[in-house]
Amino acid sequence: MFDTIKQTNVTGETPADTRKRILETAGEVFAMSGYRNTTIREICRSAGVNIAAVNYHFGNKEGLYLAVLKYRQEVAFRKYPLDFGTASTDPPEERLRAFIRSFVTRILGEGEVSRFGRLMAREYIEPTNALDTVVEETIRPLFTRLSSIVRQLLGRKPKEETVRLCSASVVGQCLYFLYAAPVIKRLFQQPEFGPKEIEAIADHIAEFSLYAIGSFAVRKGGEKG
Amino acid sequence: MFDTIKQTNVTGETPADTRKRILETAGEVFAMSGYRNTTIREICRSAGVNIAAVNYHFGNKEGLYLAVLKYRQEVAFRKYPLDFGTASTDPPEERLRAFIRSFVTRILGEGEVSRFGRLMAREYIEPTNALDTVVEETIRPLFTRLSSIVRQLLGRKPKEETVRLCSASVVGQCLYFLYAAPVIKRLFQQPEFGPKEIEAIADHIAEFSLYAIGSFAVRKGGEKG
Repeated sequence: MFDTIKQTNVTGETPADTRKRILETAGEVFAMSGYRNTTIREICRSAGVNIAAVNYHFGNKEGLYLAVLKYRQEVAFRKYPLDFGTASTDPPEERLRAFIRSFVTRILGEGEVSRFGRLMAREYIEPTNALDTVVEETIRPLFTRLSSIVRQLLGRKPKEETVRLCSASVVGQCLYFLYAAPVIKRLFQQPEFGPKEIEAIADHIAEFSLYAIGSFAVRKGGEKG
Repeated sequence: MFDTIKQTNVTGETPADTRKRILETAGEVFAMSGYRNTTIREICRSAGVNIAAVNYHFGNKEGLYLAVLKYRQEVAFRKYPLDFGTASTDPPEERLRAFIRSFVTRILGEGEVSRFGRLMAREYIEPTNALDTVVEETIRPLFTRLSSIVRQLLGRKPKEETVRLCSASVVGQCLYFLYAAPVIKRLFQQPEFGPKEIEAIADHIAEFSLYAIGSFAVRKGGEKG
């Protein structure tokens, strides 16, 4: 049995190539089976590397998993940057639209990017030790960025509780299409989200949120600052 | 090993008592470990019954799991009914508030009820064969009820796509606090949701959604019908 996983690497592959190949394969396997149900042995078999290579690059399963999350995240943010082409001096309405478009595309977009979404969805439901790091390195900066846009939209000196809850409303609407994908598929006989559906979803969430936050700003007597 | 699970039932327990005890224990175990990682043997050990009792009442693991979902759902809806004291003739604003309050309390509320939420969250991420039944028997009626309230709020003849997306916005905001609980805990150092937090969350979601849907109704030129 040990023989089958002790395959040698493709001749001439550099350590960086091997590392990348392990990360990509491990991402697939973790997304499919979850952290706890995945063994290093299984990843080695799929990637055609030996356990020594995994240990060399990542230390252990936990190290590999965290590296996978970071790698997937880099790929996703490179493809769909947070600002989506807007500048920090652009009106907050534009920046909220860009934030939502970027977020929705990152979690629902096809291929590599949506597998990052699936990994993250699992991490939410069955948190591993990696979640502390993910929250501090990825989720908190995202939430801070969103909150600053929402704060600006709400006008002068909104309550921090209102900023937080309105930001949660935006994020919740986006994540629903990731979490509830199996349900939405059954409810509306919608097999997959293509680029057109993703655009329509992002537009709707932006419109819904801008209406709501705009009303909070007006009716709470806030002034645009 | 077989001996440990072949415990006899508590003397004098009726079959209905045994059935209920199995359902309650199985709910805990499924919520903790997920459907795939749970064995009937484990449930028998925890409930102090033998495998024959499970087979007699539920047929097999799949039958037991589906019965658990239905049982938990009945408990949750009995405690927090869908209309939350409103009548179908009440204004749609009131009915939306009641729907959201009932939904948020059902998924976040303490004890038995929130364990139903956890079971459902798992079902969303890693659907089992039970999801088809859950969608038809629970989720579709819920979504239909919500859609009819949203349709009324949107005024005369709204696009079905708008009704569906606005309903998704409402549900997504509610479910976020279930799915993202481990993240929210870390982001805001919020250990658990007590009754006060649940009420504040429900009020915010209702306000946010009523502002947004109200603006859709006005700006899309719809009239209250």
